[in-house]
Parts: sequence; structure tokens; C-alpha cells
Amino acid sequence: MTEQTYLANGNEVQLFEQAYRQRLPVMLTGPTGCGKTRLVEHMGLLLARPVVTISCHDDLTSSDLVGRFIVTGGDVVWTDGPLTRAVKAGAICYLDEVVEARHDSLAVLHSLTDHRRTLYLDRAGEVVQAPENFMLVCSYNPAYRSSLKELKPSFRQRFVTLPMDYLRADREAEVIVAEAGIDPAAAERLVRCATAIRTADEAFHYEPPSTRVLVTAAHLIAAGASELDAAQACVLAPLSSDGAISEGLREVAAAGLAGADSQSPNR
Amino acid sequence: MTEQTYLANGNEVQLFEQAYRQRLPVMLTGPTGCGKTRLVEHMGLLLARPVVTISCHDDLTSSDLVGRFIVTGGDVVWTDGPLTRAVKAGAICYLDEVVEARHDSLAVLHSLTDHRRTLYLDRAGEVVQAPENFMLVCSYNPAYRSSLKELKPSFRQRFVTLPMDYLRADREAEVIVAEAGIDPAAAERLVRCATAIRTADEAFHYEPPSTRVLVTAAHLIAAGASELDAAQACVLAPLSSDGAISEGLREVAAAGLAGADSQSPNR
Amino acid sequence: MTEQTYLANGNEVQLFEQAYRQRLPVMLTGPTGCGKTRLVEHMGLLLARPVVTISCHDDLTSSDLVGRFIVTGGDVVWTDGPLTRAVKAGAICYLDEVVEARHDSLAVLHSLTDHRRTLYLDRAGEVVQAPENFMLVCSYNPAYRSSLKELKPSFRQRFVTLPMDYLRADREAEVIVAEAGIDPAAAERLVRCATAIRTADEAFHYEPPSTRVLVTAAHLIAAGASELDAAQACVLAPLSSDGAISEGLREVAAAGLAGADSQSPNR
Amino acid sequence: MTEQTYLANGNEVQLFEQAYRQRLPVMLTGPTGCGKTRLVEHMGLLLARPVVTISCHDDLTSSDLVGRFIVTGGDVVWTDGPLTRAVKAGAICYLDEVVEARHDSLAVLHSLTDHRRTLYLDRAGEVVQAPENFMLVCSYNPAYRSSLKELKPSFRQRFVTLPMDYLRADREAEVIVAEAGIDPAAAERLVRCATAIRTADEAFHYEPPSTRVLVTAAHLIAAGASELDAAQACVLAPLSSDGAISEGLREVAAAGLAGADSQSPNR
Amino acid sequence: MTEQTYLANGNEVQLFEQAYRQRLPVMLTGPTGCGKTRLVEHMGLLLARPVVTISCHDDLTSSDLVGRFIVTGGDVVWTDGPLTRAVKAGAICYLDEVVEARHDSLAVLHSLTDHRRTLYLDRAGEVVQAPENFMLVCSYNPAYRSSLKELKPSFRQRFVTLPMDYLRADREAEVIVAEAGIDPAAAERLVRCATAIRTADEAFHYEPPSTRVLVTAAHLIAAGASELDAAQACVLAPLSSDGAISEGLREVAAAGLAGADSQSPNR
Amino acid sequence: MTEQTYLANGNEVQLFEQAYRQRLPVMLTGPTGCGKTRLVEHMGLLLARPVVTISCHDDLTSSDLVGRFIVTGGDVVWTDGPLTRAVKAGAICYLDEVVEARHDSLAVLHSLTDHRRTLYLDRAGEVVQAPENFMLVCSYNPAYRSSLKELKPSFRQRFVTLPMDYLRADREAEVIVAEAGIDPAAAERLVRCATAIRTADEAFHYEPPSTRVLVTAAHLIAAGASELDAAQACVLAPLSSDGAISEGLREVAAAGLAGADSQSPNR
Repeated sequence: MTEQTYLANGNEVQLFEQAYRQRLPVMLTGPTGCGKTRLVEHMGLLLARPVVTISCHDDLTSSDLVGRFIVTGGDVVWTDGPLTRAVKAGAICYLDEVVEARHDSLAVLHSLTDHRRTLYLDRAGEVVQAPENFMLVCSYNPAYRSSLKELKPSFRQRFVTLPMDYLRADREAEVIVAEAGIDPAAAERLVRCATAIRTADEAFHYEPPSTRVLVTAAHLIAAGASELDAAQACVLAPLSSDGAISEGLREVAAAGLAGADSQSPNR
Repeated sequence: MTEQTYLANGNEVQLFEQAYRQRLPVMLTGPTGCGKTRLVEHMGLLLARPVVTISCHDDLTSSDLVGRFIVTGGDVVWTDGPLTRAVKAGAICYLDEVVEARHDSLAVLHSLTDHRRTLYLDRAGEVVQAPENFMLVCSYNPAYRSSLKELKPSFRQRFVTLPMDYLRADREAEVIVAEAGIDPAAAERLVRCATAIRTADEAFHYEPPSTRVLVTAAHLIAAGASELDAAQACVLAPLSSDGAISEGLREVAAAGLAGADSQSPNR
Repeated sequence: MTEQTYLANGNEVQLFEQAYRQRLPVMLTGPTGCGKTRLVEHMGLLLARPVVTISCHDDLTSSDLVGRFIVTGGDVVWTDGPLTRAVKAGAICYLDEVVEARHDSLAVLHSLTDHRRTLYLDRAGEVVQAPENFMLVCSYNPAYRSSLKELKPSFRQRFVTLPMDYLRADREAEVIVAEAGIDPAAAERLVRCATAIRTADEAFHYEPPSTRVLVTAAHLIAAGASELDAAQACVLAPLSSDGAISEGLREVAAAGLAGADSQSPNR
Repeated sequence: MTEQTYLANGNEVQLFEQAYRQRLPVMLTGPTGCGKTRLVEHMGLLLARPVVTISCHDDLTSSDLVGRFIVTGGDVVWTDGPLTRAVKAGAICYLDEVVEARHDSLAVLHSLTDHRRTLYLDRAGEVVQAPENFMLVCSYNPAYRSSLKELKPSFRQRFVTLPMDYLRADREAEVIVAEAGIDPAAAERLVRCATAIRTADEAFHYEPPSTRVLVTAAHLIAAGASELDAAQACVLAPLSSDGAISEGLREVAAAGLAGADSQSPNR
Repeated sequence: MTEQTYLANGNEVQLFEQAYRQRLPVMLTGPTGCGKTRLVEHMGLLLARPVVTISCHDDLTSSDLVGRFIVTGGDVVWTDGPLTRAVKAGAICYLDEVVEARHDSLAVLHSLTDHRRTLYLDRAGEVVQAPENFMLVCSYNPAYRSSLKELKPSFRQRFVTLPMDYLRADREAEVIVAEAGIDPAAAERLVRCATAIRTADEAFHYEPPSTRVLVTAAHLIAAGASELDAAQACVLAPLSSDGAISEGLREVAAAGLAGADSQSPNR
Repeated sequence: MTEQTYLANGNEVQLFEQAYRQRLPVMLTGPTGCGKTRLVEHMGLLLARPVVTISCHDDLTSSDLVGRFIVTGGDVVWTDGPLTRAVKAGAICYLDEVVEARHDSLAVLHSLTDHRRTLYLDRAGEVVQAPENFMLVCSYNPAYRSSLKELKPSFRQRFVTLPMDYLRADREAEVIVAEAGIDPAAAERLVRCATAIRTADEAFHYEPPSTRVLVTAAHLIAAGASELDAAQACVLAPLSSDGAISEGLREVAAAGLAGADSQSPNR
């Protein structure tokens, strides 16, 4: 894991910090791989707070968040969960893809997100008042919205919401070069290829390629793969396994990469 | 958490107190963030009773309410749940969003809400007679009514029902100023913005913004955010992530805030 | 809890007693709040048998009824459930809203309701023969009939069925006066209001108001509430939160209470 | 529980005994209350075998049938379930309403119902060979047939099937007199009333009244109830709570009882 | 349980043995009661391998197959399940009606059915290499094919598949005589009766009667039942409880048995 | 298990190695039996890393992957799961048929597949940084795509995707000869038979026969079975149990094997 500089896309850093100063919880929204996790890591450094990350999923119970009784040495001892530990430590607690969690697990967050800023550990019979430097951050991708999984409006209204999006093309190429160390021209061709697919996306209805997959492709190129092979394995193949669609995407991508393999040895 | 004065919207304080005097349970209904939790906290102070709050959710079992056997020191000991503790302490027990609870969990409330005022702890083999100063209060938001989650009529009929609603515009601005310390004119612009959206709500079918989100926005403004950024992050973004709808809401909101950012530095 | 006299509506007391003498189980049917629980309490006093009440719900297992093994002092001990305790004590065991129970939980009742009058505790390896003075009573509200929750015909046929209904208007006012101590004229106005809504019910499809809600309203009036406020909070508000319907009901109720608030201070 | 004589309706006693001699399992089918349980009890006496009855239900696991490990005295001990106990004791094991059981629970019966006559206790690592005098008997009511609950054809084919039905009218009156000790003429009127309803059943689609409910009604009459009250409480009320249907049934029943209450004091 | 000779219907014995020699798993398909279990028992004798039979059902977990941790004497000890025991013993492991098992339970079989022939006990942290003489055999009845329960193609392709079917009429009568010791002419009449029903089956859509039910009927006949009673109880009654269909089947069967009861005393 | 040479079909070996060098996770896609598992085993040898295989299924919990607390000797000890063991050992962790796993179980992989390369053991309170030589490989068969089981786009985008397919006919025959030691001409006939069915597949909609089933058939032939019997048992019978389709497939296959059994004794 290399140290990375976060490249802001708008005023999200400033609003995040204002929310932190006012002890308000923040909700980050935006497509996969647009930098939500990176922003949280960046703010942790900036605000000098540790970040406790919790990946949400269908099976995450409130006990997984707040803690549970564990049998140890023949006795039963309460053990704090990651949320409780984060509250007590005054950390930034980051619930990644919060929409994936079971909604009942989220009820425990209510008293942390309003004026009470309090965590009730009903089973342990304990009440934890959050310190000033505790902050709750959630993220979710609204593109996955389904009737079953939509966050309740009353839950969304508890947060300062910061909508995020992909980087602009030039910033994106900059990130790719910085992270994978490939030729700027090759990075630009990868971005052009991704942009072509993102633009064509409405016809295909697939999740468009993220900055992350371009970085992955760049890593493969840095390891000696051809640009076409790398784009094929990292950008196109994950999009669809339907033959006809894949064919269409490949043409779109080829146009983006046009002239690449005739020109490029990469390293 | 600052001390707050509750601003009554009707005769809810008086009826709540009459119900308490007659030892009748109360049901608060109304939209998210209209002040139900605040009313209960206010009444707790007024009646000098502690308030035990239980956030209801899909996974709340009757054991979570009344208690369970816990293994401790190699032995099994009955441990009262928050409802049992509230009954024994003569507290106000507040079941927030009771409609979220599993209906079978609510059966344990029946004998507490009629002339018996008794809690049967079947598993512990104990019968608890509620003292005079115990009171049960539930809340729910009828806007979330679905066939799966509707409270049974026979359950609703067990309560004195107090319907609540948003504060009037002038009271709402008053609350915002009192809580976030911003300029009264800015508070009024926020209320105007919220009112515009609430009025337009029938076309959009989204949960309208609550007083709580306006207070949150005011906190951001107090921290230095522009009114437009604050309204965007706290009022508009949580409402919808659908591009077309967001666009429409933004116009509605901008009209509400009209002239704001030319005038306002907030601190 | 004050001592109350049960006011019979038909020959239910006589048939209940005949069933008890013949050691037959009884099923009480009828709308919410029409007095089923009161009848059972009354018969317990009349027959000098203790009453063990079990509120049925979706999550009630047969173990909750008959008992389970509990770990205590490092050992495992069988603990009788309320049904088993009632059988052994020769009590009246009252299963309230039996239709709410999981049907598989009810299978354990079969051998108690036919000529065997025996409870098989399969897990404990024990067979309990019910004494002569044990009686099983169930209740349910046929208005909640849904395909998922309907009692099986073969189960219903195991009981002597006593259909119950609301009290006649004059008896109902008598009960209200006896329980809440308000003016007979005000009690009559409340009954008239309820009757008006019950009559209009077919158009609204809501559970009509029970005697219980009228008693609750009377308690509020006794505490100083106006008749309109009390009827609003206890009779109308629990019926519906749909604006249009509420409006319609309010007119119906106002006609019932006509002239009330001009005349009445109630204490 | 009085000693009772079983009145055979066909050759079921003879075929049951032949199946027992050939060590074949038997399946009894027929409507509720037609005497299936009585036949099994009768055959137990005739063949001098104890009867182990298991009421099947949705939640009956194979562990409930064959046994489980129980923690006792800090150690884990295998405890036979009722099926295992019946196999080892060479008893008649009677699975009442087998169609109610979870189908996976029934898989454990396969090896007992074919030439192997063996019970595999996989979890205990034990194999139990059934003795010659063990017999498995199941019952179910084909009227409850639903797609979810139908027994698999391959399961049904493992049994000698004995279809049973209601007694003929004269035998039925005989049973009523024998069990409840009422006047033969009153018994005949009850049977006439039941027959009328059974004949009209196709129009109402309700489970017709069984011999059992007639015996129950007779018991109430013996306790002093009028024939009309007894028929109402035991025969009609369990059939339906739909007003229109109840009305229709009452006319049908009244015709059956015609002239009863003018004639009859019953004791 | 008497010793039985297996009567092969085709080349299934030879192919089964070839698969065993090549250490390939076998899948037996065919209708209920056509002899799949018998073939496996026969091959066990022929190949001198013990047979471990596991009846699959909805609730069979992979732990039931491979083993689990058991608390014993205060400690936790791994206990092999029947599959693990069979692998270690070099037995034939027979999964009867494998299609009934939960599909996730079958994943544990993958590594046993390809070139690895290895059982991974992930929870115990143990890897068991199957000895040369271990063999896995599964069976299922394709007639029960439903979208929910169909085996995955990739699973089916892991096996040598041996389709089986009913015996030819003359072989079937031979089996009946050999197993139940009745008159050959009576056996032939039973087969004729079954054949008539099997032929008519397309109109009735019921699982046709298996050889097993004919043997059962023959046992009843051997015990003194008339051929018509035996055919009724063992062949017809299990097929359907629908009156009209039963009537039709009875005519079909009577034609098959024509002249039987005039001729036959059976012993 | 014999040692085997992997025959590459494209540039998958090269891209796999480049991904390994760049510490990127790999996703293998393609039909059943096309060699995905073999490729992983081959790369393990080539890169000199142990391979830890986990067969995914519906019931695979994240605890099965990362580990759980086990009671041992009266105490509770954390025990690493196979994923955790693989991370710590710097192994290739191979999740076979990852699409079968419960999606919530896969959330634990997120932090392993991005720049963090970290495994969070929330319950053990441990954070494991993956060593350089750890690699995560998943496989799935896109032909099984259903709405319930499709991998989320954001998950697929975390991997370098290598699409795989069947071997070319000549390579496939080569593999068959190498593994089962049969006559090359017979191997070619088997391939021709498979190719015929694969081509006809669009009409039948069944999973086409894999190289694996041809190898299995070849093993049976090597054991003395006729080519027709072997093709029938290993190639055709697993495809379908529908009579009409089987008939059609048999004709297609016979054409492929044409002239086989007149020519061939195999060994």
C-alpha cells in the first residue's frame, strides 16, 4: 500500500470538514470506484483521526456493530464491536455500502446521528456518550437502488450528504500515471477507452468502468501486458459475459485505444 | 447536547399529561423529525420521570424487551430487559417507531396497556405489576404504511393517540435560530426553501424535509458553508439521487432561498 | 385495577359453566374489546379457579407453552411452561388470540382437547393427565381472518364455541359510567358516537371502536379533557391516519356527540 | 377417560392386523374425527402393543423423532426420541397427521418402512434394527390436500393404505349414546342435524361436522344445555363465522333437530 | 430381512463394476421402487465393500455429511459424519434421492468426484484422500424434476449415469413370488393390474405403482387378504384420494385382476 | 491422482502471472470442465505457491472463510479459516464457483482485492496484511447467470478477468489420450461426438458436455466398456432425462461415433 494524494473533485473536502467541526454525520454517495473510500482515508489523515472501516453486508447484525457477550475462561464477558470501539476512541467510523446492511442493524445508529450522539448498548446495559472527535460516515451507491434495499428517507435525512462522481478525464489520467507509473499517453488512451464505454453505457445498462479498473489495467501494462490485453481483462471482461454485448463493447473500446499497440511498448 | 425548550404545536402536552394522570398509554403519530422524540423528552422533565428509549426494528424480539437468561459465572441468571427495567422503575418507556418491531414482540405489551397494567415474564415465571408512575409511549410514522408493517387496529385502539405535525413556519425558524445560532433571516430562507419542497412533494413522492434537516443545514452554515451548499447537502441530496428529480427540486429550493447568497455571510 | 362486575350479553356464562362441568374446552369468538378477557376473568372467580393467561403471537413455540430445559448451576433442569403449570394446577388456561400462534405450536393442545385430556411432554419424557378442574379456553377475532392465519377446521371443532358481540348501547353506557365515573349523559354521547362509526364502518373498512376505547375516552374526560378531544384521541385517531377518511369519521362522530361540549364540563 | 369399544366400519381391523403380522407399515386416511386415533388405540389393545403417539406439525424435526444430544451434568448424553423409543420397545408408533410434518423429517422413516426395517441414528452413530412387534402407523386427512403439503407419492407407496370414513347414521347415534349417556332420540336428532349439514356441505365448502363434535354436543346436553344451544355451540359455530353462511347452516340444522326442544328434557 | 438375489434389467451391473474399477462415481436414475437401492446393496456384496446409506432431505447440511464438533466431557471433539466414515473405510457411500439435499450441501462432494478424490474437512482443518476402494453412488428420480430441485448440469456431469427402469412383466412376477411366496398366477395378476395402471397413467398423472407396492400387496395376500383388498390397500389407495380418479383406477385394476377372487385362495 | 501437464488455450498463463507479479486478484470465467481448476493448480506449481481451494456454496458464511471462535478445553480460542490461513501463508486462495456463495460472505474480500490487500477479522479484533506472494483467484460459470445469483458489477470490477473456453478439438483428443490411455482414434470419435452435441446445443438448451465427461467416458472404455455404452453413460445420460430430447441427442451422438463399435476393441 503506497501513500497517496487525494485529488478533490469539488468542495467535498471542505464540507466534510465543516460537518466534522459541527459533529454531524456524513453520507457519501456515488458510483463504484469514484473515490469514496479514498476520501475517508484522506480525511482521517487531515483530521488526525483513526478510521475504523466496516464493510456492510446482508448478514451484518447490530451485535457485529456494537459488540456481544463472549464466553471466555468459563465466564461471559462483554466485548465491544468495531462501532463501539470507534465511538470510545473518537475515531471516524466508516460504514462502507451501508445500503447492504440489514435495516434493523441500522436502528442502533439513530441515537448516534441526532442531537443525542449516544450509543445505547441495551444488552450490556451501558450508555456511551460519543466524544467530540467521533464522526460517523456512511457510503452507498445509488445506482444499485432496488425496492428491497433502498435506505429509508428518515435515515438518509440524518446525514449531511456529499454526492461524488468520477474524476474529469485529465485528473483520471493523472491518477493512473501516479499509481501505476505508466506512460501518460497510454494512461490517456485508457481513459479515452473508458469514456467511450461510459458514454455508450445507456445502451448496454452495465455498471460503467471505474477509475479503479483503469488503474488495474495500467498495473498489468506496467507488468508487460499489451494495452489491448489489459483493457480486455480489466475493463471489458468484467462488464459482461454476453457474447453480443461483449462484441459491441470491444469495438467501442478499440476506437478509444486506436493506434495504441502500434505505438506502445510500456517500459 | 444542549438543553432545549419544547415548543408545543397544539394541545399535545396537556393531553399527554391527562393520559399520564389516568395511567393510559399514549401513541404519537406524525412525519419524521416533527418532534415526537423531543415531546417525550420534554414530558419526562415535566413529569419528573426518567425516559427509557427503545428504537424498534425488525429483529427486536420480546426477549430484547423483557429480558433473558444470561450465563454468568457458570450459572444462568435472569437479566431484565429495558421494558422490564422501565416498568419496575416507574419510568416513561418510549418505543420509537413501534411499527418497525416484529408484531409478535408487541404481544407482550397487551397486558401493560389495558386495565391489568401488568407485565408477564413467562420465561422467568415472574409477574410485574406496573407502579402508578409507569407510562408506555409509542410512536410511528403513518406515511410508511405498508400492508406488511401496518399496526393491527386492536393494537392501535389500546392507546390515546396524539397526531403531531410539522411546526408552523415561524415557530420552525425560531427553533432553527435557537439550536444552530444562525441569522433569523437565513433561518427563514431555509424554512421557505423547505416549505417550497414540501408543497411540491405530491409530485415527487418523497419524504419531505423535516425540521431536523433544517437544523442540520443551519449547523453547516454556522460552520461557514454557503446557504446553497448547506441546503444542497442537507435538504436536497438526501431526498433523491434520481437526476431529473434532483434537478426539479433544486429549482424549487433555489426559489425558496432566492437572494440568499448575495446577502449572506453567516458569522 | 379495580374490581369489576361482568355484564353478560347472552347465555355465555351458563354455557361456559356447563362446558367446565363436562370438562370440555371453550373457544370465545368476537370483535376486539367486546369482553372476552373479562368473561374469562369473571368465570375464574365464579368457578374459583386461577386463570393463567397466555398472549399468543407468531413466535410462540410449543416450548414456550409446555416448558424447556434450562441450564442452571451447570446442570440441565426441565422447567414447566405456563400451559404445563396450568394443567398441573387445575387452572383455567386462557390462550388469548390463539389464531396468532404458529399452528405447529397448537398441535400440543390436541391431546388436551379430546377424550385423552393429556399433555405429552415429549422432550421431558413426561405424560401429564389433566385434573378434573383444568379447563382450556381460547379466543380469537374472526374479523382478522386471512388465508395464512385461519384456524384449521379440525382445530375449531375441538371446542365448544361461544360467539360474543358488543354490549347493547344501554349496557355499554352503564359499563362506561361504572369504570370511569363520568356523567351518564356524557357516556351516552360517547356510545352514540361509537354507534354512528360502527354503522358507517362498512364504507370505511376499519375495525370499529370497542367498548374499551370508550372507557379510555371516558377516563380522559374524567381527567379534564373535552369530550371532542377525548373522542378524537381515543376513538377517531386510532381508526385511520388517512386524511380523507379521518375527515369523514370526524363528521360522523361530531353528529354523535352533538351538543356535547356546549353542555358538558365533566367534573 | 372412559374405556371404549371400537365400532368397525369395514374390514379395517382385519387388514390392520394382517399388515402387522407381515410387518408392514399402515397409513390411515379419512376426514377429521372419523375414528383414526380410536382405531390405533383399539389395535394397540387387540395386539397387546403399547401405542406411542406423535402429533406431527411444521416444526417437528427429525431430532424430535429420533433423539438428540442433551447436556447433563456437564456432559453430553444421547437421548432417544419417541420414535426410537417406540422402535426399541416394539411398540406401535402412531404419527398423527403426518402430512403436517416437515418432509425432510420424514426421510428418517424410509429405512423403517421397507425391507430394511432399520432406524439409522446418524448423529449418534447407532443403527437400530426394529423388532418383529414394532409397527409404524401414520394418518392424514386428504381433504387438506395442498400443493405445499401433499405427501410424496413415493412416500405414500411405502404403506398399506386403509381409507376410513364416518360411521353410518345408526352406528353414530349408538356411539353418542354410549359416550355421553343422552336419550337415544336426542342422539338421533343430533345425527340428523349433522347429516343435513354434511349433505349441504358442497355448497358451503366447510369441513363437515365429525362424530366428535356430536359427542361434545351430547355432553353439553347431558349437562343441561338445550339441544339447540348445544348444536349451535358445538356443531354450527365452529363451522363458520361468516354471518350469511351461519344463517344458512342454522336453517339446515334446525330442520334436522325439528321438534327437538318441544319434546326434550335430557335427563 | 431375507437375503435376496438381484435381477439385472440390462448391463447396469457390468457398467457399475467398470466405474468402480476406474474409481468413477455413479449416478442411478429411474422411477421410485425400480430397484436402485437393491442394486447398490447387490454391488456391495459383489465388490465386497460395506455400503453406507444416507437418505437425502431438505435439511441435510454438509455437517451432517462430513461431521461436526461435539461437546463431550467439557471438551470439543471432532466427530466424523457418515460420508467421512465411508471415505476412510473405503466403503460404497450411497446418497439416496440426492436431488432432495440442499444444493450447498453437495458442494462438499465436488473434490471427491473429480481427479482429486479428496474430502476437505475445512472446519476440522483435515484433508482426507479417498482410498482406491472408496466409491460414491447417488440416486435420483427424474420424474420429480422441478425447477427448484433439479440437479445442476455440472453436478450431473461428474457421474457415470446408469438409467434404470421397471422390470419386465415376467421378471417382476418372478420377484414377487420370490419375496412374498404367493402363487405365481396371483403374482401375474398383480403385475397385470400394475401394468394396466401404468399404461393408463398418462391420463391420471400419478406416480405409477412400483414393484415394491406389488410385493407389499403380495405380503398381504400371503397373510390371508383377498387379492382385491390387497390391491386396493397397497396399489390403488396410495395413488389418489380423489374420488373420481380412484373410481377410474379401480376399474382399470379390476380388469387386470379379472377372475382373480373367483379362482384364488392364496396358501 | 496422476501428475498432469496443463495445455494452455490462449495467453491465460502469461496474464495470470502478470497479475500475480502486480499482486492483482484474478477471476476465471468459462463453462464447466473447461480447465479452470487445472489452470489454478498449474499456476501454483509454476509460481511455487501452495493452493488453498474453497468450494463456494449457498451456506458458506464469512466465518467459514475467515475463522471463528471454537470452544476447546473449556476456553474459547480463535481458529483461522482457510482464507485467513491462505493469506498468512502467502498462498493462492482459489474460490471455486464464487457466484454460489452468499453475497454477504464476499464482503470480507473487498479489502483484500483493492490497494489495501488487508483482511479485517472484526470478531477476532485482528488485522492481517497480505504478504507479497498471496494471491486471490475466483472462478465462475457465466452460463448459470440468474438474477438472484449474478455477481455484483462492483465485485467483478475488482478482478483481472480471464475468460476461458473449451480446448480445440485436436488438443481435447490429446488430453483424453494422455489421461485415460485409450486409442487416439477412439478419443477423436469421442470428441466428434461431443462437438456434434455442443453444436446442436442451442436447440436443446442443456449444458454441453465438458472435456471432463469425455475423459470419464474414456476411462470406462479403458475398463472394457463399448464406446456406445460409455458415451451413453457419461456424455448423454447426464444431459437430460427427457425421453424425446435423449432420443434426439442419441442420434446426434451416434453420427459422431459412426463406425466406432465395428472397429474398436480398446486395449
